[in-house]
Amino acid sequence: MKKLIKDKTQFLSDMLDGMLEVNKNIELIADSVIVRKDKKQEGVAIVSGGGSGHEPAHAGYVAQGMLDAAVCGEVFTSPTPDKILSAIKAVDNGDGVLLVIKNYAGDVMNFEMAQEMAEMEDIKVASIVVKDDIAVSDEDKQRGVAGTVLVHKYAGYLAEQGVKLDDIKARLDQVLPTIKSIGMAVTAPMVPTTGQYGFDIADDEIEIGVGIHGEKGLSREKMTTVDQIVARLSDELLKQVDANHLIVMVNGMGGTPLSELNIVAKYLAEYLKGKNITVAHWLVGDYMTALDMQGVSLTFVPVNDELSQAIVAETSSSYFNLV
Amino acid sequence: MKKLIKDKTQFLSDMLDGMLEVNKNIELIADSVIVRKDKKQEGVAIVSGGGSGHEPAHAGYVAQGMLDAAVCGEVFTSPTPDKILSAIKAVDNGDGVLLVIKNYAGDVMNFEMAQEMAEMEDIKVASIVVKDDIAVSDEDKQRGVAGTVLVHKYAGYLAEQGVKLDDIKARLDQVLPTIKSIGMAVTAPMVPTTGQYGFDIADDEIEIGVGIHGEKGLSREKMTTVDQIVARLSDELLKQVDANHLIVMVNGMGGTPLSELNIVAKYLAEYLKGKNITVAHWLVGDYMTALDMQGVSLTFVPVNDELSQAIVAETSSSYFNLV
Repeated sequence: MKKLIKDKTQFLSDMLDGMLEVNKNIELIADSVIVRKDKKQEGVAIVSGGGSGHEPAHAGYVAQGMLDAAVCGEVFTSPTPDKILSAIKAVDNGDGVLLVIKNYAGDVMNFEMAQEMAEMEDIKVASIVVKDDIAVSDEDKQRGVAGTVLVHKYAGYLAEQGVKLDDIKARLDQVLPTIKSIGMAVTAPMVPTTGQYGFDIADDEIEIGVGIHGEKGLSREKMTTVDQIVARLSDELLKQVDANHLIVMVNGMGGTPLSELNIVAKYLAEYLKGKNITVAHWLVGDYMTALDMQGVSLTFVPVNDELSQAIVAETSSSYFNLV
Repeated sequence: MKKLIKDKTQFLSDMLDGMLEVNKNIELIADSVIVRKDKKQEGVAIVSGGGSGHEPAHAGYVAQGMLDAAVCGEVFTSPTPDKILSAIKAVDNGDGVLLVIKNYAGDVMNFEMAQEMAEMEDIKVASIVVKDDIAVSDEDKQRGVAGTVLVHKYAGYLAEQGVKLDDIKARLDQVLPTIKSIGMAVTAPMVPTTGQYGFDIADDEIEIGVGIHGEKGLSREKMTTVDQIVARLSDELLKQVDANHLIVMVNGMGGTPLSELNIVAKYLAEYLKGKNITVAHWLVGDYMTALDMQGVSLTFVPVNDELSQAIVAETSSSYFNLV
């Protein structure tokens, strides 16, 4: 395995140390929880997190206008309830805490357990579960993927606007079912903590519907041209998205060069024009990755005024870039 | 070859089409020149460019506070003098044009030819040549690599401050010899226009001193831990950098995940502390890439007040991020 690491057991702690070294606006508590140094004195605090390996998610979004804390599990491993509870207690200012959870069994269980523990200590906590990945047909098992980053931005915006906890949860619960994503992989990720590739794939194959941990998707297919891949993914999305004005994210999976993400954007723009669908905001870059996997995911969200304001609102995160 | 492209002959034009689709602040002229839509009405215009495959360089830096135009050659291929001339003529407002050239024979020849052609049309043009790569011992052949992005930022800042052309050139010529970079590769880039890897490398080897086109560097060495790689590169840099307060760039080569760049930053911070060197500004991310190559380059620049102001000055580029 050729990875820029010292030891596989230190991947998470070394990465967090590096982040802390270069980003003077964050600090570390409870070994693996990143919080803002300038704790919000009022307003709902937003907490997210999950396994690591998805950088800049989640710790890169701990910033004014997005998250107040990110709970960082080991690579592709859910953080434990005690860490999540530490995050909740650190950021709560009395106005309550919203947990943004990606729909994985371990994450849901551990975040909900932490919620219960916090509530026993009289902290107001609400939670939402993101399940934007349409590659899984059973809705309960739909995974939370790149669309989660848009939820972070929307939640952070509503909190900054002074919206109360219950109301933030209600507005997000309305938007959540309209966020749809699907990914594909060209190569498998090399998992530094195991030294193994996440899956095997032939030199002429791609995985359609891959998850952000390299999970199996809709189907293993023959490699083809980018315009056909974009149409393949977008056809699936449009089965579930009924709108003609969208926020569109072209998310790199970690090892995909920016040049190729822009080529994807070109063909996606052509595809959408052919369907008379307009794009309100483009996001093109690495937002929710799978280590060094090469591939891309597309996220479509019908736009409304408030969501649009949330997307363009200021944030001090370096990683939520509108191009 | 599994690349997200339609056809190798369309790599550049498709990428530029995609950029134009998502970035409404830029436009395309002369087929392969990206310029700002809001042309500067006064002040020196900054033009750079070179072969493609280094994204976000150079077109991603066409923005308020950085470049006025980027001339985009085919992958790893210098743009032709007529395109460079088109860029110069498009951005000149009478206050003159500065060309920021990376030190490759083709780039230097073509940019200088364009400069002469522009001067014959009575446009004031000055040029500087960036040769920050210390992996090449012959100074004339030292390549321009990631440090070039800092030059874009400094030049763009000086232009915004209303500094005159000759003076900008003089200030940059003073700083240029102090910018030092060195890279390393874990994997070779897949070149989409040829379908070939840029070089062969064994599963247990790394290339120390690699260029941003996958050129040979200082030596082929056995893979080792990140702390040792960081020390190996930094030792080389400190042979040529005599300062105890630096701007530091940790530049991803395109296929390196952000997690690993942060791990590099951790060990670089440790190394520098051990040498009693402090860091004024960290830049950690993909600034000057080599397609999908996995690897990293380090850039050290002694900091001074003006350079520091330039680095933190506003820019509308999404790609020049201080963490």
